[in-house]
Amino acid sequence: MSESKKDITIVCFSGDFDKILAAFTMATGAAATNRKVTMFFTFWGLNVLKKEQGRKWLGQGVMAKVFNFLMGGCKNLPLSRLNFGGISPSLMTGMMKKHNVATLPELIEAAHALGIRILACEMALHILELERDDLIEEVADVVGVATFLNASENGHIIFV
Amino acid sequence: MSESKKDITIVCFSGDFDKILAAFTMATGAAATNRKVTMFFTFWGLNVLKKEQGRKWLGQGVMAKVFNFLMGGCKNLPLSRLNFGGISPSLMTGMMKKHNVATLPELIEAAHALGIRILACEMALHILELERDDLIEEVADVVGVATFLNASENGHIIFV
Amino acid sequence: MSESKKDITIVCFSGDFDKILAAFTMATGAAATNRKVTMFFTFWGLNVLKKEQGRKWLGQGVMAKVFNFLMGGCKNLPLSRLNFGGISPSLMTGMMKKHNVATLPELIEAAHALGIRILACEMALHILELERDDLIEEVADVVGVATFLNASENGHIIFV
Repeated sequence: MSESKKDITIVCFSGDFDKILAAFTMATGAAATNRKVTMFFTFWGLNVLKKEQGRKWLGQGVMAKVFNFLMGGCKNLPLSRLNFGGISPSLMTGMMKKHNVATLPELIEAAHALGIRILACEMALHILELERDDLIEEVADVVGVATFLNASENGHIIFV
Repeated sequence: MSESKKDITIVCFSGDFDKILAAFTMATGAAATNRKVTMFFTFWGLNVLKKEQGRKWLGQGVMAKVFNFLMGGCKNLPLSRLNFGGISPSLMTGMMKKHNVATLPELIEAAHALGIRILACEMALHILELERDDLIEEVADVVGVATFLNASENGHIIFV
Repeated sequence: MSESKKDITIVCFSGDFDKILAAFTMATGAAATNRKVTMFFTFWGLNVLKKEQGRKWLGQGVMAKVFNFLMGGCKNLPLSRLNFGGISPSLMTGMMKKHNVATLPELIEAAHALGIRILACEMALHILELERDDLIEEVADVVGVATFLNASENGHIIFV
């Protein structure tokens, strides 16, 4: 039965805290029920994978430095609505802990433990002048669009 | 021929007025052409399903109350852009009526009449401290991610 | 082998500069690897297809004129985050050129050359009181939801 289940590929484009939580919730739920899951991080989504969790001037050019600083790391993900200058994600995390719902770092760890393949987008890294070494160890590979499309041939693509 | 058509599962994550309209338009269009359609409402999307159409202090904890109040109900859905403090959705509704396009309450009713399965996300209800009774009658069930993934095995997943 | 590859249908709902770039990058990448690709533009996404690249009072009614003016054309697409009053898309374009990544007009041209079918949503045109003639020549057809769903029977639907 398990071989008939569709693979799931989630494109994490938006770096919104709430959407990233939704992505990891779907991903871990799918992996826990024997589905092959790939997460492809691109653009704002790359912030989730930065080693540096806060704001840092990464990249060579001035523009790349500024964008990377403003985008920040996984501790700077904004809420897609009602962000209130960045305070809401912590409040939301409080509400999640209260109800024993896994938080973002726990979900990343769980995703890795469940064998979810975490990929980073080559082109987005290139534009933002980031190196493989700027990303966390859990990243399995840096790939292009063609690789990610091939990985999703037998399943769903969910763009978040 | 109809049995070969793919099922459609729409994840209504964003509670934006325009995206919810798009979700219902795709859902009713798909159901009207003999497709099995499931709509899974989570996070901001839950606002569409609240019985109380305006703002109300739902939930037990202070944080849940504040979030629920600020998120409001189906009459408080913002436009994803050019919202102008909430006036735009009414203007948009005016433009839709002028051209005989179905409005949101009409689309919800149509969805129900067409046999579209409306599901609410268990975890999101839990975090926001909402009860089944806080939601409209049209909600068929409160389910987890695994149930929604199983429902989409033979079809598309569209994340809105 | 090519006939087993899934078709890709991308619904370009959001008119955000960054999301549209992602849509065209996926579309051209898929078409270049022998996939049949359809792009269905609706709502804010229609701005990408307007002949007039800047702001213009299109439509008959006052409301339609105002919305069309505010939404603008393909030169007015905002960034989904860090837009800074519209300056960011040009900065982003600068960063893309620096790294030899194709810009939006180049991607539209490439999409057309690769045989990607560009469709405009009938209902959205109707609501915004736009005519076929207000759109660029590359638009293959103006269609409804049913047509777009039929086009995606053998593939993925990606909502951007």
